[in-house]
Amino acid sequence: MKNSSNKKALKIVMIGSGNVATHLSSALFNNGYNIVEVYSRTKKNAETLSKKIAAKPISDIKKITSDADIYIFAVNDDVVKTLAEKIFFQNKIFLHTSGSLSMAVFKKYFQQYGVLYPLQTFSKNRKIDFKKVPICIEGSSKATEKIIFELVNKISGNVQKINSEKRKVLHLAAVFANNFQNHLYTLAKKITDSEKINFSLLLPLIEETTAKIKTENPIKIQTGPAARKDKKTMEAHLKMLKNNSSEKEIYKAISKSIAKNT
Amino acid sequence: MKNSSNKKALKIVMIGSGNVATHLSSALFNNGYNIVEVYSRTKKNAETLSKKIAAKPISDIKKITSDADIYIFAVNDDVVKTLAEKIFFQNKIFLHTSGSLSMAVFKKYFQQYGVLYPLQTFSKNRKIDFKKVPICIEGSSKATEKIIFELVNKISGNVQKINSEKRKVLHLAAVFANNFQNHLYTLAKKITDSEKINFSLLLPLIEETTAKIKTENPIKIQTGPAARKDKKTMEAHLKMLKNNSSEKEIYKAISKSIAKNT
Repeated sequence: MKNSSNKKALKIVMIGSGNVATHLSSALFNNGYNIVEVYSRTKKNAETLSKKIAAKPISDIKKITSDADIYIFAVNDDVVKTLAEKIFFQNKIFLHTSGSLSMAVFKKYFQQYGVLYPLQTFSKNRKIDFKKVPICIEGSSKATEKIIFELVNKISGNVQKINSEKRKVLHLAAVFANNFQNHLYTLAKKITDSEKINFSLLLPLIEETTAKIKTENPIKIQTGPAARKDKKTMEAHLKMLKNNSSEKEIYKAISKSIAKNT
Repeated sequence: MKNSSNKKALKIVMIGSGNVATHLSSALFNNGYNIVEVYSRTKKNAETLSKKIAAKPISDIKKITSDADIYIFAVNDDVVKTLAEKIFFQNKIFLHTSGSLSMAVFKKYFQQYGVLYPLQTFSKNRKIDFKKVPICIEGSSKATEKIIFELVNKISGNVQKINSEKRKVLHLAAVFANNFQNHLYTLAKKITDSEKINFSLLLPLIEETTAKIKTENPIKIQTGPAARKDKKTMEAHLKMLKNNSSEKEIYKAISKSIAKNT
């Protein structure tokens, strides 16, 4: 009972209207939280997200309400500071959602602050089950961290306390496992497209590779020409790739690394 | 009725006892095919697989029966030729299962031959639903190709006729999408391990990245520092990676390629 009344009492302002802001707002809203305002410098974007979560759209940062409890900055890293500088009220909790930005970015401006980093890739038109999204939290004090934990624990089944240094390392790992992984798919598609082969033929393979690492250590299941030091096949592959192409460079760099790491 | 009697009549010899041989043999056996012999130069391996599929183990290639219809070479690329040289009987169909080996490897030795390339990564202890594995086939003649198609069509719901040149390209794409993808997971794990962060935190992200490309073109959903040309974050990441480490080299090569391709 206490929890649900807390949720109702707590007023949240969402600063940002991009993918993270949209998914996070919806998850909070669907769990009974009251998001009173959405800020975006683009009025239309503020309006679009506001409508979904019964909030008020704001497009001038100086006009955001001082009558809220938690302010969540879900904007690009380099904008967090610029926006924080323009907010002068205190005794509130200010959070950002970035993987690579230190919590200390807020130190100069606020007394209570922290981080709420959802470790997931969000696209506007894809539904995400937030219960399964790991959320890494950090607070400027134990009391603040407790409030962040309680906030986040309602929307995710996997809340982790992780400090700024560790979070940066985790974000770097995520770049390898998500951004770079997606780029390999782009290159694989470029290669199949070049011969008018249907890229979807690769999907069962991709799914199985991903399914495997749920139970196996990836280093122990590495296969392919580089792992078995099959020079003949690697040379044939390099011949197929254009000189100075990024595919060739990546092929060499990863094959070298596989040979070294397996 | 004709089909099932065909299946019973057809005698198959499996040459090889590795992951592909094991999974392919089991799929054939479970669909009613008669695998009469399994060859492996290592007697114990021939015996292990033979037991599973009620076949006879053979460890001397010269002793394999001439009384079969189809001989499947599921061995390393560089062994296919060496073994084919030692088989002197004709009027049979000889197939290999390699992605990168041309069908023509058999031309010198046999009259009827072809390829059956299952586009999947196989591990001994993981079950694979063969119905979902795309199988690329090629035959030395239309008649041979028809026989291969009928053989394979019983075990897979996705049979594709693809010639040797295209198959090589597909195999190269598979190296990017499977072998290289798995290595990125290895590097991501190395990074999280270095800070004693649980690698499993990355799993929901990895799964979502993989799920996305079922419906989206990967080039259109690329995110991350390289895609948004966020030099500050990229420099911070490069600082975190050791000089001359393969992680650093791969980070640079892929980031460069993302900037070029998005």
